This record gives sequence, structure tokens and C-alpha cells, in this order.
Amino acid sequence: MSDERPDRDDSARPDTVRIGVLGCGNVGGALVDLVATQADAVERRCGIRLEVARVSVRNLSAQRDVDLPDGVLTRDSHGVVSDPDVDLVVEAIGGIEPARGLILEALAHGKPVVTANKELLANCGAELYAAADAAGRDLLFEAAVAGGIPIMRALRESLYGEPITRVMGIINGTTNFILTKMTDAVLAGGEGDYAATLAEAQALGYAERDPTADVEGYDAGAKAAIIATAAFGAKVVQGDVYHEGISRVTGAEIAIADRLGYCVKLLGIIERDPTSEEVSVRVHPAMVPLQHPLANVRDSFNAVFVEGDFADSLMFFGRGAGGAPTASAVFGDVVDAARNLRNDTHGSIGALHDAVIRPIDETEAEYLLGLDVADQPGVLHAVTGVFAGHGVSIRVAEQEGNGPDARLVFITHSALESAVQATVRELRGLEVVRNVGGLLRVVGG
Amino acid sequence: MSDERPDRDDSARPDTVRIGVLGCGNVGGALVDLVATQADAVERRCGIRLEVARVSVRNLSAQRDVDLPDGVLTRDSHGVVSDPDVDLVVEAIGGIEPARGLILEALAHGKPVVTANKELLANCGAELYAAADAAGRDLLFEAAVAGGIPIMRALRESLYGEPITRVMGIINGTTNFILTKMTDAVLAGGEGDYAATLAEAQALGYAERDPTADVEGYDAGAKAAIIATAAFGAKVVQGDVYHEGISRVTGAEIAIADRLGYCVKLLGIIERDPTSEEVSVRVHPAMVPLQHPLANVRDSFNAVFVEGDFADSLMFFGRGAGGAPTASAVFGDVVDAARNLRNDTHGSIGALHDAVIRPIDETEAEYLLGLDVADQPGVLHAVTGVFAGHGVSIRVAEQEGNGPDARLVFITHSALESAVQATVRELRGLEVVRNVGGLLRVVGG
Repeated sequence: MSDERPDRDDSARPDTVRIGVLGCGNVGGALVDLVATQADAVERRCGIRLEVARVSVRNLSAQRDVDLPDGVLTRDSHGVVSDPDVDLVVEAIGGIEPARGLILEALAHGKPVVTANKELLANCGAELYAAADAAGRDLLFEAAVAGGIPIMRALRESLYGEPITRVMGIINGTTNFILTKMTDAVLAGGEGDYAATLAEAQALGYAERDPTADVEGYDAGAKAAIIATAAFGAKVVQGDVYHEGISRVTGAEIAIADRLGYCVKLLGIIERDPTSEEVSVRVHPAMVPLQHPLANVRDSFNAVFVEGDFADSLMFFGRGAGGAPTASAVFGDVVDAARNLRNDTHGSIGALHDAVIRPIDETEAEYLLGLDVADQPGVLHAVTGVFAGHGVSIRVAEQEGNGPDARLVFITHSALESAVQATVRELRGLEVVRNVGGLLRVVGG
Repeated sequence: MSDERPDRDDSARPDTVRIGVLGCGNVGGALVDLVATQADAVERRCGIRLEVARVSVRNLSAQRDVDLPDGVLTRDSHGVVSDPDVDLVVEAIGGIEPARGLILEALAHGKPVVTANKELLANCGAELYAAADAAGRDLLFEAAVAGGIPIMRALRESLYGEPITRVMGIINGTTNFILTKMTDAVLAGGEGDYAATLAEAQALGYAERDPTADVEGYDAGAKAAIIATAAFGAKVVQGDVYHEGISRVTGAEIAIADRLGYCVKLLGIIERDPTSEEVSVRVHPAMVPLQHPLANVRDSFNAVFVEGDFADSLMFFGRGAGGAPTASAVFGDVVDAARNLRNDTHGSIGALHDAVIRPIDETEAEYLLGLDVADQPGVLHAVTGVFAGHGVSIRVAEQEGNGPDARLVFITHSALESAVQATVRELRGLEVVRNVGGLLRVVGG
């Protein structure tokens, strides 16, 4: 390159970009493989040679599938980010610290950083994006949200000028796998029991032994916060996100949703009110029309559906997790950051403003609510009285089963969340109500 | 910016980027609107002021909805691309010439170019990409393929190092609209007649008065060539693409596909053989499993499904046409090109190599084939003899109707295209065969 560009300072335009990788687990290991197999193709296409120069690990003697020359592995992460022989840093250790400190240190040394760390970005994103801009270096994080799906690039670049009104995402593979299996069982005439399906997902490796972060919506909430920040340029953190998981979704609810032309999905929803500029960010199970593109997102696949004033509807579908798809996203960022480094430039999600979060209480939707009730005269009357008392109007009421299995399912007209929650609270106190199921909001019409 | 970057040549880093627009039809007009409404938001986020400086039109006195200051409109396109007060050119006139010459002229003047011109890129892409690289300027064309869907950016950037094995796209909105309406009619018990549905699509403005380019697959073929070039780095032109349209798809075929768990879609398919490096690029109707994400791409929506070694499956869904979605894609490119211009850098699809095209005859698939036949003894025997004579093995054979409406439908096992085509040719010559329907290949399992 130096022959063609004599007017350039060569040190800022390396033809070889040496990568320091922090962590060598699933993602770090798959990235090392990907660099080994794809370096030639990348060099042919853009003239940049990618090399893995240093890899930091916690335990030097652990068994690893990756093939690395002597001296590449180290236990000293700080040494990697400050090493003058490292041009670009990939953070693949996860968690807040020491990842945060190491990323700031790498940026301060003028090294672009690629990360897949959703927890860190969902909590400290604004600080890190600002540090990257101040350093004039890339901080790219495609793999932090929806694994191999290039949604962050779309938001950061293609849709940069697009007035985005709503984003709806299936952004947790574990819960989508469980809901898909429950639905398949229900449609095959089975029960679609949540606990049994979770156990099956755990046995297959689709759910952790402690599944809380996935099934209760914490993981999706972190990703929703990152998406909201990129989509609206607003500082949204994980703590701003309302979340409800799938552990109370029942086969009976899935069956009635299907009869009405809907499937049940756990969605992350990010909305902006164009007049008040308030932002609503929430994760909860939702009823999606069967003909909606999100409805055919099955098993552990992820998808993000974006609605904008000009682009209309867009959807991005793919693998949300797994070493190879995540490494593929990291690798795309690495190539991008390497090209930017050679050109002494960098991307940016732009200036961020403080977010005004709309409380979940002030959002509106149609709701499906299932109740296990005592099978005795006057129950329907008592229950509907509670809805009426809170001004929540009922569109559909169905009774299923008899005796101890008696179950009522309601769908409301559009209602205020606070009114529906007050209804639920009062229903829980009714003696004739044995159990109140999860709320399903109707979405995407 | 000049205060912060005293080491830079300011002329290459304008804070205001003045846009010259060639053509002010649907897309050009919507772009002018988008710049007017979104310029403030873009400036807030990245410090660049976008301005429409010149707009060339064929007829100065035509009625236009766009609001432009005096002196912006001109009939002199060459004046726009050579105007020193124009920093960046948007080509929205379409066709090969004068668009090709104007783009080359703009690049030669050091101006990045954004275009939505699929015909031009599908025929002269390699020349234009090389001219852009030689000029060190962007030539961006997101809107040329699948309108508002950011598939080109994904291929150019996110998936730059990904070994892509196959791309399947619903990349023509007119045919997808017609097939969706035919399918809805068939599932509602109607006939799903092609000619009547085409007439309906024409009445609604979803099909042109002369629909040939859409319904016979020429339009999709041009887009498939552009996708193949970006996905594989190979010089593929429109003439390399095998194409078959939807005009022979019947309601009966759609009905049997549905019974077997498939829907019928017109797909552009781009495949690479990893060992021979041969590329197959073709457009034809195909049977897609109902649970496949492409199956829920309805009406005039487009989608592109990408399969790669590491990323696994990805899909990009959205509006494939229309002034606003197309302008949204153009606008995303304009912002990108403006940021690159400020940083004196540019993107590139990289070096291209010559393509070795695999002839359609050498591809393999399962096939569905419908025949209108005379209802007389021995017909099935005569017809199956033709299949057997070409070594094509039959998986399913069904007869529908009687008398003059008698119809045979076959699904083959996996077979070579040349053998199936030879079968079709011989069937056309049989006296008992009154009509041979379109071939439907089974895809995406």
C-alpha cells in the first residue's frame, strides 16, 4: 500500500493487522479458527493480512482445540491491550470487570475494540462509546445482540437517518426454543407443559442448569437496552427495561392463541413516541399473528423486526448464539475495524442523549389472561366484575375444562397496562381464583 | 471539525455535503424529502450537514411534489456531475445510458456515487466498481437489490469474510404479490387463476401494464447477478442468469404443494460449489417448506436468505420497492458516503475474479411437474415411461379431475436438470399430453 499512498503516514495503515484476543472460550476459540481459515480470502479481497498475535486465557494448561504458535497464549490480559505488537483487541471474556477496564485501556492505547459483551454494553455502553469516539477508534459489538445477525450494523449505518418507530425482537434463543417445542406439542394434541419442555431444553443444551437469566427475560432485557440505544440515540440501560419471562406461559394459552390465529413469542419491544420522545423498552411474552414474519422464527433462531417511517418494515433473522455464528459476527467487525484502522477512521453510533423512559404502566395493548378457577356458580360473574371495576373491557371470554381443571381465558380490548395490572392483583385476591397465568399482549397487527 | 483536526486537509472533510441528484421521479423525489426532514437529525448525530444542491430532470415544467429552492432544478445532468459545488452524486434515472457515463464522470471528478440502478449494475457492474476503486470513492447501491433491505451492506461488510454457500431470495415484489394472492385463493377453496390474479395486481398497481420483466424473472435475474457478484466476488452479469417466471404456475400446483407442506415462491438462487468454485445463478418458481422463514414473506415484501459456513442461516426481510423504502436505502448510502468522504476513505466490494458459471443443466433438485392429459386408458403408463426413459425416478404421482380436466401431478426424487428437461420435451410431444405446466423445484429443506 505504501507505494500507492506516499502521502500517508504508514504506521496508521498497516497491511497486517495483529489481533489480541481476550478470552479463548466458545467465541474466542471460534474466532481464532475463523481468522486462520479466512485470512487468505480477506487478504485477496482487501489487501489486509489478519493475524492472531496474542490470546489471553485464565488457565494456560487447559485443553484447547485451537492451534496457536508458541508464545501467543498468555495469562496477562493487561499485557495484551498495551502490547505495541497488538493493533486491534477482541474482548471475549464477558462480564463487567475486568472487561470494562481492559476495553478502556485498549482504546486509550489507540487500539480499536470488538466485543460480544452484552452485559457490559447494556450497563456501561454510553461510557464506552464515548471513550471510543474520544480515542477516534472503533468499538464494534455486532455479536452482543442476536449473535450472527447484523442488526447493529443496520441500525448504525443503513438506518442511520431513518426515523425508527418500533423494534420487536425475538432475541433469546432458549426461550424461543422452549416456546416452539411447547407449541409443536400443543398442535400435536399434547399438553405443552412448560416445566417438562424446559427440562428437555436443558438436556439438549439449549438451556442452562440455572435458566433464570434466559427464561425470566433478563438476557433479552440487556439486548433490548443496547438496541434502544442504537435505534434512538438514547442512553438506555438494562435497569430501564421492564421484563417478564415465559415461566408462566401455559399450553392452554398457546392453544387459544393458535385458535385465534396467533403464536406466542417472547419479544423485546422498543418503541418511541414521536411527539413526547418517550421511549418504552420492555420484554414480555406476546401473541404474534401467524402470518407475521416473526411467527416463522422457530427453535433457537433469533429475529429483529424494525419499523420505520420510510423503510416501512424490515426483519433480520439468524442464529442468536453459538460459537460459530457469534464468531462470524465478531469476524465481520474485525475486518471492518481493520479496514477503518488502515484508513485511520472509525465508525460511531453518534452522540447520545438522555432517555425519557415511559413506565410500563402507561403503555396500551390488548391482553390475553388465563385463570384457573373453582368450578362453582357465580365465578364468571365475580371475575368479570373485577375487569369492569378497573375499566377493562372484555373482547373474548372462554371456559375450558370442568371441576378442578376449570380454566377461564379472556382477551381484552385495548387497555392501559396499569388498569390490567390492577385487575390481575385483585383477581389474585379472589377466593374462587386458584391461579392467575401470565399476561400475553397482542402485538404486530 | 477543522479546529479538532488541524493535521487534515479540510477540503476533503466537508461538514456540509452537497448532493447532486440525477432524476426526480419516485426515488429521487422521496430522497429529496428525506434529506429535508432528516438533515437535522443526521447533523446532530454525526456533525455532517446534508444539502440537496442540484437536481437534474428531463422536463423543468413538470408538476412535482418536492419543494426546492430556485436554481436547484436543471436539465443539464453533465453539469451536475461536474459541478464543483456538488460533493456527492445520487443517480436515480435508471437504464444503462446515460447513467453509466454520468456515474463514470462523477467518479472521475472525485465524487462518490449512490445508485439504485439494477439494470446498469447487473450488466456493467465490474467496470463501475473498478472505476470507483480507482477513484478512491464510494459507489454504493443498496437500493438496487431488494429496495429498502440492507442486504448489500451485509454482504459487503458483515459477511465480508464469511464463506457463503447459498443465497435464496424473494427479490421481486410483483410476482410475490401474485403468488400470495393465488395461494390465498386456493386455500380459501378458489381456483387461484394466474391470469385473473395478474389482472388484479395490475389494477392495484402492483404489476406493470407490460408485466414481462417481472413475471418472467428478468428483474429478479438482474438482482441475482448483483447479489452473486457481491457474495462470491465473482463477475456475474445478467446474461449469466438462468430464469423462468411464474406465468405457468397453476392453482392446482399450489394446492398440491400446500398438501405436501410447501408454498410456491419465485426464488433467485445463488450457489457456489466449494470444490469446483463453479457458481450457479438462477431464477425459478420453487416449493418452499411452510415452516421456512421465506414462507411467511407475503404480498409484495422481499427477503433474502443467506447460508454461510459460520453464520449458519441469515434472512433479511423488507420492502423491495416503492419510493419511500427505496429512498430510505439510498439515504443510508448517502450518509455512509458522506461520512467516508469527510474521512477521505471509501468502501469497496473488493477485487473481483472471473466467474465460472455452472449451466442449469448440471444442477440437481426434486421437481414437481403438472400435466393436462387426455382422460383415456394407458395415459399414466405412457407418461411414466417417458420419465423412466430419462432415468428420472418418481416419488409421488397423483391424478386430479376427470374427462377434459384430467391432470397428472408428479414429484420426482432428486434428479439432474438436463434429464428432467429432456423428460419435459418428450412429454410435450406426446399426443395424450395437452399441456405441460411449469416445473417447480423443491428448495430449502
